[in-house]
Amino acid sequence: MQKKPLILISNDDGITAKGIRTLVEIMNELGEVVVVAPDSPQSGMGHAITVNNSLRLDKSFAFEDMGIEAYECSGTPADCVKLAKHHVLKDRKPDLVVSGINHGSNISVNVLYSGTMSAAIEAAIEGLPAIGFSLCDYAHNADFSHIRHYVKKIASEALANGIPKYVALNVNFPSIVKGEIKGIKVCRQARARWQENFDERKDPYGRMYYWLVGDFISEDDAHDTDIWALDNNYISIVPCKFDMTAYESFPAIAQWDI
Amino acid sequence: MQKKPLILISNDDGITAKGIRTLVEIMNELGEVVVVAPDSPQSGMGHAITVNNSLRLDKSFAFEDMGIEAYECSGTPADCVKLAKHHVLKDRKPDLVVSGINHGSNISVNVLYSGTMSAAIEAAIEGLPAIGFSLCDYAHNADFSHIRHYVKKIASEALANGIPKYVALNVNFPSIVKGEIKGIKVCRQARARWQENFDERKDPYGRMYYWLVGDFISEDDAHDTDIWALDNNYISIVPCKFDMTAYESFPAIAQWDI
Repeated sequence: MQKKPLILISNDDGITAKGIRTLVEIMNELGEVVVVAPDSPQSGMGHAITVNNSLRLDKSFAFEDMGIEAYECSGTPADCVKLAKHHVLKDRKPDLVVSGINHGSNISVNVLYSGTMSAAIEAAIEGLPAIGFSLCDYAHNADFSHIRHYVKKIASEALANGIPKYVALNVNFPSIVKGEIKGIKVCRQARARWQENFDERKDPYGRMYYWLVGDFISEDDAHDTDIWALDNNYISIVPCKFDMTAYESFPAIAQWDI
Repeated sequence: MQKKPLILISNDDGITAKGIRTLVEIMNELGEVVVVAPDSPQSGMGHAITVNNSLRLDKSFAFEDMGIEAYECSGTPADCVKLAKHHVLKDRKPDLVVSGINHGSNISVNVLYSGTMSAAIEAAIEGLPAIGFSLCDYAHNADFSHIRHYVKKIASEALANGIPKYVALNVNFPSIVKGEIKGIKVCRQARARWQENFDERKDPYGRMYYWLVGDFISEDDAHDTDIWALDNNYISIVPCKFDMTAYESFPAIAQWDI
């Protein structure tokens, strides 16, 4: 009998989120699952790592009903993957690292702010095949039923074919309220940004504080982007790399008098 | 008389760090300076933003001796740039955003973990010319004297020529202990990663905790990288973009049966 693939699972909404439970259930059909996930929500943590504090890592009973080995960590999603690789798994090399399913979209430039994707990109830096899954629905009780089939299919293909080295897939799914999914598009990251606003409030002691609020503005009308795909009810897959070098700008900088 | 350029300054070591004071002193010779920086150290925060909590933003007197407008913020470097752009500066558009000078290197893949670079990249997302400066010396009392000339030169060139839109420069300087600087190289981000280890300890109550420790391992011997430049006592400039799409991996994913 062939050995079952080893699948490491993390997320950024925390180990008790509905999204990670859904992902654990699906991956449990494909291989042996180990979960190392944050013990509290880590949304917006980007690629943060914990360097000025120590970390806690404790056995979790979140998936005891399924007999799955799980750990909860006080750190960020990137910390979880580092702890999983170098401490929990040690000599057991995962065949796939999956993160999510995030409650909320991680399209376009949000890949930079996303804890979900930071777990996947951290795995890619380690040379492991990795996928971050996100559903465009922020609800705590979001409905993941319509995407189970696709999550399983995409992970199966990654296990069967591999993912190009040092690449992590950023997979986003339309919400169920948008109706039937039309298919899957491999896309580029759209050019978009947050148009921010700060909601200024006064605390009971008279001191100001601020909430970050904003609208996400697309500056990209093309049809080959993740924004277009999701707007048109396709699943978007953006292969992401972590070499951020802007090669195309070398000639401009080379002309500087430095 | 020509209007002085407006220069926004942030960092990740916090508003009281020696590195940001050095940067403020240098930029004060080039333009009108406004500082919005974290009120405490934010190293390793990557591109984290504060979405589950509110933010504090208070007038700072850290640069009162120089008559410079400054604010300290409870959030991350990316939060500081957002607050600066959308709340503090509002209709005043900075001609340049600089971050640092970081106490410690931000070479290679560390651009992802770096709070210093997240401030610069956040500015680039906003379409502003941006530079992150880092010195390869982690000391609290690091010596910045040998790089003042170069910081001023690079910022002057950026003000004179502009930086390609949506690009942030990641500038790293050799430490003074390495001797005389040989010059400046425009480089690509080296392929390297952390070989991590977790230092496992028992707290006074018998519960385990962990410190992240590790060695930074280069997997890239080429001479066009930031690691090579700094090893050979050059200043490295890596132009960085935030489109993380791995275009070269599209054909492989396109062959999947999905």
